[in-house]
Amino acid sequence: MNLALLFGEDFVSAEQAVLTGRRLAHLKSVLKVAEGSVVPVGLVNGDIGTGHVLQLTDTQATLQVELPEPPPSPLPLTMVLAMPRPKMFRRVLQTCATLGVKDIWLINSYKVEKSFWQTPWLSEENLRENMVLGLEQARDTLMPRVHIRKLFKPFVEDELPALLKNTHALVAHPGTGTPCPVHINAPATLCIGPEGGFIPYEVEKLVEAGCEAVHLGRRILRVETAVPVLVSRLFDACS
Amino acid sequence: MNLALLFGEDFVSAEQAVLTGRRLAHLKSVLKVAEGSVVPVGLVNGDIGTGHVLQLTDTQATLQVELPEPPPSPLPLTMVLAMPRPKMFRRVLQTCATLGVKDIWLINSYKVEKSFWQTPWLSEENLRENMVLGLEQARDTLMPRVHIRKLFKPFVEDELPALLKNTHALVAHPGTGTPCPVHINAPATLCIGPEGGFIPYEVEKLVEAGCEAVHLGRRILRVETAVPVLVSRLFDACS
Repeated sequence: MNLALLFGEDFVSAEQAVLTGRRLAHLKSVLKVAEGSVVPVGLVNGDIGTGHVLQLTDTQATLQVELPEPPPSPLPLTMVLAMPRPKMFRRVLQTCATLGVKDIWLINSYKVEKSFWQTPWLSEENLRENMVLGLEQARDTLMPRVHIRKLFKPFVEDELPALLKNTHALVAHPGTGTPCPVHINAPATLCIGPEGGFIPYEVEKLVEAGCEAVHLGRRILRVETAVPVLVSRLFDACS
Repeated sequence: MNLALLFGEDFVSAEQAVLTGRRLAHLKSVLKVAEGSVVPVGLVNGDIGTGHVLQLTDTQATLQVELPEPPPSPLPLTMVLAMPRPKMFRRVLQTCATLGVKDIWLINSYKVEKSFWQTPWLSEENLRENMVLGLEQARDTLMPRVHIRKLFKPFVEDELPALLKNTHALVAHPGTGTPCPVHINAPATLCIGPEGGFIPYEVEKLVEAGCEAVHLGRRILRVETAVPVLVSRLFDACS
């Protein structure tokens, strides 16, 4: 937690917020704050700044909040991800939030096991909690939007073409002939398959919808590695 | 496992190998092979190719092995990593192996907790097992070398300068003024701190030894995200 993310309900007055639970525990045990300490804070979907610890008790920390700075720039990237295995999903979601991805579409694919969709990590509350962890890591405040689409074909035929409009549209597909472009630094849509990859029919449908199939070389990467590798390859702005 | 990595002791003749244990279980339960199936294989520190399943029993698979191709190119990168928290270490080690890093130095740092060095993941056997998993993911065969240095100062003063010679030497340090270069595609040495970063004294010592302190922008990344982001930023060859 490189920043404590504050929500409207944390505020007890215009400039004072009260932290409890996980954030309080982190302030105490990791950051070892005391009354008078200053910690980085941000308002969800708002600006970032500092919180002066006015009062610290066993159950809460009261912060005097100032938010003079904007959060880091979002990536102009729409991420379309075949639903990963639950344990990996949690990490991938945090990583996407940390990297500045703001638009995440979780889709079905032949190699997505049906059970993956049953994971509690897909509940509203758990999605939010993991995105908060990812944002706090990056000192970001802008909450990503997650869209769940459990049917591949209707998504790719009916919704994807509109998402792709005016973006570099790519599907990461090991074994194709075209290397993934580098530092395009422009709006992009990136489709990443499940472990084992999209099947040929799915790649065809994605290409029909307007995606270009690109590879990252001979090495096959796990989804959780491919996400940061691709993001870093497409966007080099140290913003 | 996108390739079954074979060791000398797996071979029962010049061209036949016998798999048991984890690799056998994977062939059966994930790849669902039968007699006659062909699976990708590689010889540790050697070439890659195919294994024809000649015989499959409850306890072993006998493969007829052909190895006509070289493995993917190694990255010309020496990775100097403050010892991560054990759970993360395991994933980071696998990721380094998958990405083609061949030279990994695990070093101490002020924010490395003493207990991290006690992890069983640092045993010879576990290091090898996790590097095998990372290599098998990438279809690589070239086993990385891991060096353990539990004292920061002697390593940085006595060993690091020789490692840095004729390489782009970088230390990833959020908050410094210089952005990390992109696609240098040349020999590099990359130092990555622990969660919470190297302390200023450590950065000074690394800079004295010849490293340039560079940042990745405003976002602070976890070590497991920083590794693929940095590798992808420095090397764009889709080899």
